[in-house]
Amino acid sequence: MPRHPASSSLALAGNAGRAVSLADVAMLAGVSPGTVSRALSRPEMIRPTTRMQIMAAVERLGYVTNGAARSLAMRRTMTIGAIVPRFGSSSFPTMIQALETRLAAHGYTLLLSAPEHKLSKEPAILRTLLERGVDAVALLGEEQLTHALPMLPASRIPFVLMWAPPESVNHAVGFSEREAAALVVAHLAALGHQRLGFIGGRTGDNARAQRRFHGFTVEVAKRGMTICEAAMIETDYGFEQGYAAMDQIIEDLDRADRPTAVVCGNDYLAAGALSALDRAAIEVPRALSIISFNDNDFASYLHPPLTTVRLPIREMGEQAGAYLIARLRGAAQPERVPLHVGLVVRQSTGPVFEGAIRRKPAKTR
Amino acid sequence: MPRHPASSSLALAGNAGRAVSLADVAMLAGVSPGTVSRALSRPEMIRPTTRMQIMAAVERLGYVTNGAARSLAMRRTMTIGAIVPRFGSSSFPTMIQALETRLAAHGYTLLLSAPEHKLSKEPAILRTLLERGVDAVALLGEEQLTHALPMLPASRIPFVLMWAPPESVNHAVGFSEREAAALVVAHLAALGHQRLGFIGGRTGDNARAQRRFHGFTVEVAKRGMTICEAAMIETDYGFEQGYAAMDQIIEDLDRADRPTAVVCGNDYLAAGALSALDRAAIEVPRALSIISFNDNDFASYLHPPLTTVRLPIREMGEQAGAYLIARLRGAAQPERVPLHVGLVVRQSTGPVFEGAIRRKPAKTR
Repeated sequence: MPRHPASSSLALAGNAGRAVSLADVAMLAGVSPGTVSRALSRPEMIRPTTRMQIMAAVERLGYVTNGAARSLAMRRTMTIGAIVPRFGSSSFPTMIQALETRLAAHGYTLLLSAPEHKLSKEPAILRTLLERGVDAVALLGEEQLTHALPMLPASRIPFVLMWAPPESVNHAVGFSEREAAALVVAHLAALGHQRLGFIGGRTGDNARAQRRFHGFTVEVAKRGMTICEAAMIETDYGFEQGYAAMDQIIEDLDRADRPTAVVCGNDYLAAGALSALDRAAIEVPRALSIISFNDNDFASYLHPPLTTVRLPIREMGEQAGAYLIARLRGAAQPERVPLHVGLVVRQSTGPVFEGAIRRKPAKTR
Repeated sequence: MPRHPASSSLALAGNAGRAVSLADVAMLAGVSPGTVSRALSRPEMIRPTTRMQIMAAVERLGYVTNGAARSLAMRRTMTIGAIVPRFGSSSFPTMIQALETRLAAHGYTLLLSAPEHKLSKEPAILRTLLERGVDAVALLGEEQLTHALPMLPASRIPFVLMWAPPESVNHAVGFSEREAAALVVAHLAALGHQRLGFIGGRTGDNARAQRRFHGFTVEVAKRGMTICEAAMIETDYGFEQGYAAMDQIIEDLDRADRPTAVVCGNDYLAAGALSALDRAAIEVPRALSIISFNDNDFASYLHPPLTTVRLPIREMGEQAGAYLIARLRGAAQPERVPLHVGLVVRQSTGPVFEGAIRRKPAKTR
C-alpha cells in the first residue's frame, strides 16, 4: 500500500477546521462541482483521466460522502469479468451468452477473456481484469481456484465458479457428473446392454472430463457391467476426434465380445461417431447404441437423432449471473448452486441386438 | 475537457524555475520514486488506485518523460477490447478464439463483450471498454461504425471491423459475399440447376445476411436462373429454423415448378434442412441438392456431408489481430484486408433429377 498522499510535505490550503466540501474537491481537481458529483454517482459517464484527477483529489482531501453512495461511486464500475478457456467450439459460448444476458438485465457489462488452453495465462488475465476494476468475477471450473484464491479475497470482490462440482466446492454453480453418468448407465442397462465402450475427453487437463469418466466407471461397476478395453478411447472433444475414435472401434465390431453400446463424452464426439458409423453402413441403434452428454442444439438433428443427457448449460450461465448479482447486493445466497440433469431419449439407443452386425451397402463419402 | 488542474488556485511548492523530476511526482503522489518509475514503464504491475494517484501527480506537475516511453507508459494497458453481438451459437467464437490467440502472442489480453442482439447496447459497451483503458478495439461488422466512429477518433485508438466488406469499408477484415454467392450459383449451374430455393438469415438487422442474399440474387439474375418464390424463406440462423423452413418447402416439392436445389444461408440452417429431408425420406442430392455457406466444423459430418462455401472465419480473427498489432506498432498496414473464400464440394449437391421425387419409406423421428 502507498502512503496516504495527505502525508506528503505539500501544504493544502483551506482545509483546516472545517469539513471538506464537494467544492473543495472540484477546485483541487480543476473541474466543476457538477463533474465531481457525476464522478461519484455515475463514474462511467466521466472520462477516465478526469475521474482519476477527481478520485485523487477525493483521496487527498479525505472527502467523505454518504457512506453507501461513496462506496457505490468509488467501487462500482458496473463491469464483471469472466475467464473461460478454450471456448472456440464448445458449449461455453451458450453459457456465457446466458451469463451476459442475466448480468445486462441488472446494468452490468460482462468483459470476457477466453485464453486458448493455457492454464498458465489465467492468473495474468485475472490480474488484468481486477486492474480494470471489475466488480465481480466468473471463472470456469474449480481448476482456477488455485491461482484465483490468493488474489480474490484480497480484492474482496464476489466470484463464482461455473461448471464446478457443487457437491464439493464452494462458490460452485454446476451439476453432479455422477448423477449424469447414472442416467446414462441406467438407460443402457434397461435396454439390456452389458458391454460398453467409452469415447471421452482428455482427463489429464480437464477436471470436467475427469469427473465424467469417473462417474461413468463407478456406475458401470455398481451394476456389474463391463467396459470393453478396445472400445475405450480418450481424445480431444470434437467431431473429427469422434469420427476417428469410432473408426477405430469399428475395426473390432465383428468380435464376439464387442460392445453393444458406446458412450460418448459429449455430443461433438457422438456426432463424429455417428458419421463414422453411417459411412461404414452400420445401423444405429440396431447394431450399436450411441449415447452422449450435453444435448447441444444440433443433437436432435443428427442421423439418427441423439439420445443424450441434457446438461444445464444455459442455466449455469444464468445462475452464475444471479449468484454474483445477489452477492453484489449483499443478499443472502447459498454457497453452492446445484443444478439438475435429465436424459433425453431419442433414436440413437435401442435394445441389444446379439446377431452379427448387418452392414448396409457401403457408400462413398 | 476539464480545465487543467494546474489552473486551480492551490499553490504548489517547489516547482518554480526548475524541471519537474520523478522525485517531485513521487512526493506529490505519496509513493517512492521506484513506484513512479514502475508505473510509467510497467503500469500493469501497479495497483489501480496507486496508479491513479501517480498519473494525477504526473498531470498536475506536467512531468514529461522521454516522449515515446511516456506515451507507452501512459497509454498502453496491453488489453484490447472486442464487441461481438449474438454469438451464442454461431461461428463467432471460432473467430474470437483466433483473434485472442494472435493477440496473446504479442502479450495482449483480449477483453470481449458479447451483448445479446441489442445494437443499442453497443455504444455503452464500447464506452465501457474505452474507459477500462483498452489499447485497441475489434468490432463485428460495419453496423457498429455508426456509433463507434464518433467515439474512436477522439480516443485515437486503433480499431478494426471484423466480417465487414473490404470492398467498401475501411478498417475492414472480411471477404466478398458476392464472390461467395458466385461460387454457389456457378456450381449449381454446372450441375444443370435452373430453379433454386433460398433459406436465409434475417436481412432486417444483419448486414451480413443482407449482403449474402443480395449477392445470391445478383448472381442468379446474371445467369438467367429462377428463384422459386414458395421456396424463399427468411428466418433466424439455427438448426431448428432450418428444419422448420425445409418442412415448409417440402410441402410443395411435388409441383412441377419445384426447386431442384436449395441454398442455405449458413451451415446451421443447412443441417436443420438436411434433417427435415431425412425425416421426410427425401433423398439428397438425388431429389434435392443442398448447398450452404461457412464450412463449420460439423459440415463434413452431416448426412450427407455438406457442400458449402468455406468462409475465412478463423482467418478473420487472425488477420484482425495482425491488423491491430501493426497499427499499435505504427507499422504500415493496408486500410482493408480482403480474404478469400472457396467452395468445398461434398455429397449434398448433384445433377438435376427431373422425375417425380422418390421418397424412401417414412421413418419415425
